[in-house]
Amino acid sequence: MAAYKSILTYDGTDFHGFQRQAHGQRTIQGVFERALRALGWTQTSLQFAGRTDAGVHALGQVVAYHLDWKHDPERLTQALNAHLPGDVAVRHTEEAQEGFHPRFSARGRRYRYRLLIASARDPLRERFAWRVWPEPDFSATAGAAQLLVGRRDFGAFGRALSPGGHTVREVVGATWEREDDTWAFIIEADAFLYRMVRRLVAATWEIGQGRRSASDLQAHLADPTKFWIGRVAPARGLCLEAVIYGDGG
Amino acid sequence: MAAYKSILTYDGTDFHGFQRQAHGQRTIQGVFERALRALGWTQTSLQFAGRTDAGVHALGQVVAYHLDWKHDPERLTQALNAHLPGDVAVRHTEEAQEGFHPRFSARGRRYRYRLLIASARDPLRERFAWRVWPEPDFSATAGAAQLLVGRRDFGAFGRALSPGGHTVREVVGATWEREDDTWAFIIEADAFLYRMVRRLVAATWEIGQGRRSASDLQAHLADPTKFWIGRVAPARGLCLEAVIYGDGG
Repeated sequence: MAAYKSILTYDGTDFHGFQRQAHGQRTIQGVFERALRALGWTQTSLQFAGRTDAGVHALGQVVAYHLDWKHDPERLTQALNAHLPGDVAVRHTEEAQEGFHPRFSARGRRYRYRLLIASARDPLRERFAWRVWPEPDFSATAGAAQLLVGRRDFGAFGRALSPGGHTVREVVGATWEREDDTWAFIIEADAFLYRMVRRLVAATWEIGQGRRSASDLQAHLADPTKFWIGRVAPARGLCLEAVIYGDGG
Repeated sequence: MAAYKSILTYDGTDFHGFQRQAHGQRTIQGVFERALRALGWTQTSLQFAGRTDAGVHALGQVVAYHLDWKHDPERLTQALNAHLPGDVAVRHTEEAQEGFHPRFSARGRRYRYRLLIASARDPLRERFAWRVWPEPDFSATAGAAQLLVGRRDFGAFGRALSPGGHTVREVVGATWEREDDTWAFIIEADAFLYRMVRRLVAATWEIGQGRRSASDLQAHLADPTKFWIGRVAPARGLCLEAVIYGDGG
């Protein structure tokens, strides 16, 4: 029995998030464990890097498991894909070092959030983007993102996943890019608080719209006990792009 | 009661095509007529430019109808969108000239077909593209598309929508473009035969793969009675981009 690490991509639209639910809702973990069981997996729980919320997508979710598999990892990728539905796929599988844990071994995570700047509904693009109108001021939105970089207490923008957990996170990069009518917020940190990316997207967008100010954002970064009351950008625009490991990850 | 023309966009994935079905399947026409009825429309049938198949998308489908509406066309767009599901939207509405018919007044149609060149499944992009592997030879595929331009009998690549209808069509442009791992086939003609675009996509792709030759394609264009036996590219990659009208359309 060897340890394996697989990278998953999924369209989160029709899932109730990553993590298996008590009441049988469709989840990524649920369909992935079913595929593993079809290949003889008998364990009860999968290890994974990040618990994405309902409707959030992934390009680079990471899972780990032990399996008795006689062929090479590439054939394991193919076998899993043959048992997965069309909205989830394994991109890559490799043997994992003993002791590897997709969450605890990770040094960082990168998310991408897409905005579609359009006055009218656009069914061909809104599956993976949040449509907003009117167009915010790009330099104000992009400038606000710069304020997020660094080791800071983000307690104003989310809570820790475990009760009483600390809320200091190190953001190593946060930028807004644009191409035509599509804007993307790319943020990388050691870890994130619950709904932190979606709150920061909405916060920087509101600054670009002139509804909030950059100094307001700075005040909330300076005083994490003063919770930022504002929107949470919808799940549809968010994608877990990559989980980052050190050497040997 | 005035005549209106609306441009529709839709994600065709969850529809049984455009045209209303006898057995209550979900169709674009069905949901659009329901939205019109919510605004007081009492007629029985909608006029439309093209009957897209199950799973085919649209950026520029055109419909026409008569309606008693007291406000401007922009508010009609908004009112219709408020009654349409998330996978269909009206992009624009204007008053139509008397006698305008979205199908019979059209001078041409433009379709776009997307290929995704990838060895592994990709749930974030396969909704709107056909994934193929290995990569075909681009110059052979693109060169084959050039052979399609002109006024020709395309009887080898599809049948007329009405029994006994003629099969001569004028292709004014047919090109393959590529950007990274995405290829797009863009074709414009006065009209198309049933499944003609999807057959031509598969034919030019097979030429790029070396399974068929350009001279084989030429022979079938020269002799329309010899039907091209080959694949029909899947609906998911196809999008009706625009319907083209002359002055006053």
